[in-house]
Amino acid sequence: MLLRNHFLSIDPYRRWRLNDAKSYAKPQDVGAVMGGGAVAEVVESRHPRFKVGEFVVGPGGWQHYAVTDGAAFRVIDTTAIPPQAYLGVVGMPGVTAWYGLNKIIAPKPDETVLVSAASGAVGGVVGQLAKQAGARAVGIAGGAEKCAYVRDELGFDVCVDHKSPRFADELAAALPNGWDGLFENVGGEPFLNSLRHANDFARAAICGLIASYERAPTPLPDMRLVLVRRMKIEGFIVSDHLSNWRDALRELAGHVVAGRLRYRETVRQGLQSAPQALVDLLRGGNFGKMLVKLV
Amino acid sequence: MLLRNHFLSIDPYRRWRLNDAKSYAKPQDVGAVMGGGAVAEVVESRHPRFKVGEFVVGPGGWQHYAVTDGAAFRVIDTTAIPPQAYLGVVGMPGVTAWYGLNKIIAPKPDETVLVSAASGAVGGVVGQLAKQAGARAVGIAGGAEKCAYVRDELGFDVCVDHKSPRFADELAAALPNGWDGLFENVGGEPFLNSLRHANDFARAAICGLIASYERAPTPLPDMRLVLVRRMKIEGFIVSDHLSNWRDALRELAGHVVAGRLRYRETVRQGLQSAPQALVDLLRGGNFGKMLVKLV
Repeated sequence: MLLRNHFLSIDPYRRWRLNDAKSYAKPQDVGAVMGGGAVAEVVESRHPRFKVGEFVVGPGGWQHYAVTDGAAFRVIDTTAIPPQAYLGVVGMPGVTAWYGLNKIIAPKPDETVLVSAASGAVGGVVGQLAKQAGARAVGIAGGAEKCAYVRDELGFDVCVDHKSPRFADELAAALPNGWDGLFENVGGEPFLNSLRHANDFARAAICGLIASYERAPTPLPDMRLVLVRRMKIEGFIVSDHLSNWRDALRELAGHVVAGRLRYRETVRQGLQSAPQALVDLLRGGNFGKMLVKLV
Repeated sequence: MLLRNHFLSIDPYRRWRLNDAKSYAKPQDVGAVMGGGAVAEVVESRHPRFKVGEFVVGPGGWQHYAVTDGAAFRVIDTTAIPPQAYLGVVGMPGVTAWYGLNKIIAPKPDETVLVSAASGAVGGVVGQLAKQAGARAVGIAGGAEKCAYVRDELGFDVCVDHKSPRFADELAAALPNGWDGLFENVGGEPFLNSLRHANDFARAAICGLIASYERAPTPLPDMRLVLVRRMKIEGFIVSDHLSNWRDALRELAGHVVAGRLRYRETVRQGLQSAPQALVDLLRGGNFGKMLVKLV
């Protein structure tokens, strides 16, 4: 089938694929179309499962049109949910949030869940799901505007600005009872600071390390902490857990349709804006899900 | 009741209790009897559950006699198992091995489990249980004699000497397919070396950090590893999991009586030998479970 891409998904993990290093996925080939998720319209089809005019989500790549046998694409229902949400809250970032929160952190009522990149496509969902589970949600975001959004629109209990010169004190004040779950997308100094507030039996879901993709690696300070706190630190990649996607997406879609799950998008216009959109995303220049609109 | 201690248990965790620092248990009080597990004989009893002449295990402390209300003591059956084994293979160290292996590592057949301090009271049990689960067991121990014992008597597939100048190469050779589970009791350089051989979805059970109790802390090198390998690192303390003790002890006792679980003891004589026994234990001067015999 021939697809016309409408929206490209700009995700932090793409930066890692640009490294020529062994990782969980093969690096981006030089000279090939840049990979990435997209929402597309079926323009021509010889595939029995896909009909012309339908919208699909899948690995469409950074291009206007894609020819594909349909593998890893699925039809999306855009009657109640806008198509580009399938690249965010009801897509890979949403399932990432769902998996890390429910399968690794598994918050109990009245526990505290700390979320880095809390205004982002993943972090925003983590905090809202944590609140629905009866937990206290504490966000970390960059700048006063993002923090206000995390608190006032997404409903986190409090949000701490990692750009503040008093970040360490403000984080301590936001965590009077420490944290039981940490959803980590960033790494770097704020992460090391966060570890100081781990409670006994704390669970840290390591989802991304944006701060270390281009800059210094993030070491753990001392294994003693892991032992004293009987802490669990677990890295995960959502594509390892495909068996959970159907349930997660159904639940997330239900929340979106019912207005229980809010999200925000930064939309750049035109294919030529994609490289800078990725650069800006890695520097926190987005507000919610970063997208490139092609149509 | 009045107890007469027969054997004192000398365990690495006691060293940590000597630090005046916040940890999972309160520090040893200065001037008080040094705490620790013991096997004792009931000499006098006004307690309905304990009869004169019975053997018990519990927190007897470093002393010849103890007066207790019986809390945290239990009667042991010494008909088929020698009393001091209740301080080792069918005691706290055995349950520690059982919990970390079964509840954190959960090895599948043909996976590889790497065990530090493999000739010790805990490590020796870990490797033997891993073999029973169908996994490959690789030990790390200090010196050729301990390594030979781990391999030839305990039945590990291979054991690597961390005192060898070629340790890093020998460890790599012992792990041609990496490791899926790591039972870590030591920390320090060998641990950092071990991390390099983690497979995808590896589980590291952090049980102790003998190398860091007096010397430099053991940092994790880079959080990237946790993410790339989708690795789980989990610290645990066996006393948090009392609900598992009964099942674990029954299973371990069955293995010992049937001759499927082997162990070794270093027995020092007399109460005055206890402090040096702890010092020697922390330097690897034991061979298997370190005990002090009083009677």
